[in-house]
Amino acid sequence: MEYKFSDRVLTLKPSAIREIFKYAADPTVVSLSAGNPSPEAFPVREIAEISARIFAERPIDALQYSVTEGYPALRETIAQYMKSRHNVGREFDSVLVTSGAQQVMDLLTKSLCNEGDVVICEAPSFIGSLNTFRSYRARLRGVPMDADGMNMEELERALREEPNARFIYTIPNFQNPSGITMSWEKRKAMYALAKKYGVLILEDNPYGDLRFSGEHIPPVKSLDEDGLVVYCGSFSKVISPGIRVGYAVAPQTLLQKMIVCKQGEDVHTNIWSQLVCNELMTKYDFDAHLERLRTIYREKSAFTMKLMDEYLVPNGITYQPIEGGLFLWCNLPDGVDMPAFCKEAVLRKVCVVPGNAFLTDENEPCQSFRINYSTPTNEQLEKGIKILGQLASEVCR
Amino acid sequence: MEYKFSDRVLTLKPSAIREIFKYAADPTVVSLSAGNPSPEAFPVREIAEISARIFAERPIDALQYSVTEGYPALRETIAQYMKSRHNVGREFDSVLVTSGAQQVMDLLTKSLCNEGDVVICEAPSFIGSLNTFRSYRARLRGVPMDADGMNMEELERALREEPNARFIYTIPNFQNPSGITMSWEKRKAMYALAKKYGVLILEDNPYGDLRFSGEHIPPVKSLDEDGLVVYCGSFSKVISPGIRVGYAVAPQTLLQKMIVCKQGEDVHTNIWSQLVCNELMTKYDFDAHLERLRTIYREKSAFTMKLMDEYLVPNGITYQPIEGGLFLWCNLPDGVDMPAFCKEAVLRKVCVVPGNAFLTDENEPCQSFRINYSTPTNEQLEKGIKILGQLASEVCR
Repeated sequence: MEYKFSDRVLTLKPSAIREIFKYAADPTVVSLSAGNPSPEAFPVREIAEISARIFAERPIDALQYSVTEGYPALRETIAQYMKSRHNVGREFDSVLVTSGAQQVMDLLTKSLCNEGDVVICEAPSFIGSLNTFRSYRARLRGVPMDADGMNMEELERALREEPNARFIYTIPNFQNPSGITMSWEKRKAMYALAKKYGVLILEDNPYGDLRFSGEHIPPVKSLDEDGLVVYCGSFSKVISPGIRVGYAVAPQTLLQKMIVCKQGEDVHTNIWSQLVCNELMTKYDFDAHLERLRTIYREKSAFTMKLMDEYLVPNGITYQPIEGGLFLWCNLPDGVDMPAFCKEAVLRKVCVVPGNAFLTDENEPCQSFRINYSTPTNEQLEKGIKILGQLASEVCR
Repeated sequence: MEYKFSDRVLTLKPSAIREIFKYAADPTVVSLSAGNPSPEAFPVREIAEISARIFAERPIDALQYSVTEGYPALRETIAQYMKSRHNVGREFDSVLVTSGAQQVMDLLTKSLCNEGDVVICEAPSFIGSLNTFRSYRARLRGVPMDADGMNMEELERALREEPNARFIYTIPNFQNPSGITMSWEKRKAMYALAKKYGVLILEDNPYGDLRFSGEHIPPVKSLDEDGLVVYCGSFSKVISPGIRVGYAVAPQTLLQKMIVCKQGEDVHTNIWSQLVCNELMTKYDFDAHLERLRTIYREKSAFTMKLMDEYLVPNGITYQPIEGGLFLWCNLPDGVDMPAFCKEAVLRKVCVVPGNAFLTDENEPCQSFRINYSTPTNEQLEKGIKILGQLASEVCR
């Protein structure tokens, strides 16, 4: 049988990052390419306790069909948390629980974008989201990043030139992959531009609670008096990614459409995991848990940056020091062939992600690669970065 | 802010069944409109045990990111189960684990259908799937049902008249909502037609293991030597719907595209629930569990049909006796206004689903309504069916 596929899947090509992951599966390879939280960050004891309680006291609640919007108590807990901590949520907003944050990207694109409509993205940006936008045949328009977030002149130019722009996609804190955090001034400027051009903002904030140094900057959504911002949160980095729970705080009018789409995709999100998140946030000291995670990541990132300073920087590789998140964005000197560098690194048993994987057009030139420090052990970090340093000493001069 | 939505969500209207569910939420209303498994059918003790073991012995397996295809051991367990029980799966096939069976409908439509392409459906058919097909702007072509499944002349006419048909959607066992089971002869005839016209078959089989009387009929997929059939299974009715685990057994070439789509939707399915399904199927007596479910449904459906024979049939309402599944399809005499009957039933505090909700065109005339017997208690069934009988005695003469 010769299969005939839809245009949308025919345009989705296997991404560079997927190819890389094949190598990363080799146990002799040090993988600095994943995006997994540190296994020591999972609240295992708490989840075990909660789970035991659920099945002892109210098993049917966790096993029967539930509602598409999400478990009502969790929606309420999220609404209160976001309002009290981040001033997120107005009268017109509501909460939708999703099967991981990825589903927020999916449902919003499905609700807003016809084929050929435009999503304005930071360049570089998170490949998973870019591929979701592409899967609805949205066209991506990249806006280059400054050290304090998207370049606002370029953003305005994009808004002016793209009348079919449906939303601006931003990861304002510790952006994946660049590590960049958007300044408060730029957040306000971006909001003003979105309002001026009548274009929504999709604010993706998986790492916001993992700031381990520097000053907290409020979410873009905290500015939203006009119903312009869809805020996307995730429990993947603060509780567990395997439980697949994310959420959107967004105008009810938008969520209604997203709920109809979700009904057709997976009916509702796994209810056991929703109960786990709710209990963990309400019956345990969630703040203490977050503080514990920050300590883990503060120490681990400091260890990693020290290795980078020792082995990579002297060989001409620069990077942006980070105050949160899971990634380090590294830049090779001009003239060094980045894809060749990453390929040679794999041959020497270290896997990093070539930066062009995160561009709206993978064929654009790119001098960067991404390192993840949260998944590998300290031993693996040391081994991997030393190998990268040796390689750099050979090719970066 | 005035929101501009995609064409696809603008064409999705809130369905009749959703309106009905609003009434069903009223605790004074007897709801015969749900599709929930009986709460007593859940293997609560086993799930509690498995869950405790997972978090004691291998918590990280359940909490870390996993692969999009599904937990490898569960994929293997499903492959073996389907091969040994149902002769399903050939060299070219593979298994994809999904977030409920609904996601199989979604991913297949996303992979195969451009806007305007055609899905051939049984008429009536499961509204949830129809809405998923519609969400990709596929056009639905209904094929009327005989007592032994789709009318084959009408199916061939549809295949001849619809050159853009991408797949035939069938629920061959205890179809939702009609309760009809497709005969073995028709399964073979449908397969031959699909092959002749080069159109795939999506075989949705959530109730197949819940046959409580009559002869087992092998799945259409057991005939598949040509890579024509996507088999969709579900744990919702045999373990729990709240855990949201379904699966597809389908040609690897098709699954590869569906996996790329799933990556963009929810990355992977909740991994705890995949571990639960795998342990339940391999470390417990899964056959004995299924037999227990069949006993529950055999008794409950017999109780319900006895009530129908006593209160509805004498008042002119006919129904198809069932040998499995969760639903009874009831037909009002010609001349009785079905929507008015269902509305009046709600006013008298009994909720059933008007049959037109399951048609490819909800505006077509329809004399049927659907009753679910698995969710209500026996007391509720008795109360509800008596009220329907009283109403029928007033309007059906």
